Amino acid sequence: MPNYHAKLDTVLRAIADPTRRAVVERLARSPAVVSELAAPFSMALPSFMQHLRVLEDAGIVLSHKQGRVRTVSLRPGALDVVHVWLGEQRTPAEHQADRLGIHLTRVTPKET
Amino acid sequence: MPNYHAKLDTVLRAIADPTRRAVVERLARSPAVVSELAAPFSMALPSFMQHLRVLEDAGIVLSHKQGRVRTVSLRPGALDVVHVWLGEQRTPAEHQADRLGIHLTRVTPKET
Repeated sequence: MPNYHAKLDTVLRAIADPTRRAVVERLARSPAVVSELAAPFSMALPSFMQHLRVLEDAGIVLSHKQGRVRTVSLRPGALDVVHVWLGEQRTPAEHQADRLGIHLTRVTPKET
Repeated sequence: MPNYHAKLDTVLRAIADPTRRAVVERLARSPAVVSELAAPFSMALPSFMQHLRVLEDAGIVLSHKQGRVRTVSLRPGALDVVHVWLGEQRTPAEHQADRLGIHLTRVTPKET
């Protein structure tokens, strides 16, 4: 799956930066305009826009411009590729614990 | 939680590199000795050891030396910090889907 690995690489590089993670954390609450997003960061707007561009190129955020205002939002499911990769890295011991968890759920399906 | 954010930063920077991810993927199957781990990569051993050191400093792998042989293993739960962060970045729409999922599970608890 070359696409999967390329996507994973781009997304992980994007979220390995603390500024970009902070933007993702803010957008998980709601979409926001660029000026509001940039406000908490003590950096020049062009530098901040560069971070936004990395997030947009990685498919993590979407933006649209209306008049002079650009609104940015988190693309739902954008981080799923990381979730999938993490799931694949479980050790045999962790898989065993998972199977035990599933078993416990199956023998006690009723809520009391 | 300064510790959580520092940990998250270190772990994400470590796995943002494709060589280091490939090492994690190999170790998820079983522990391995350094020579075996290094074999698939066309890089000098000192460069490879530097990647291993980044993974070890991030708490993702453990290693121990017996005689002249160093064995490396994945530290169970080492990537949990990323899992937690991903869970926090779900949008309100995704949280709603999760709640719907839980609801569907609860009204159809029996397997047929």
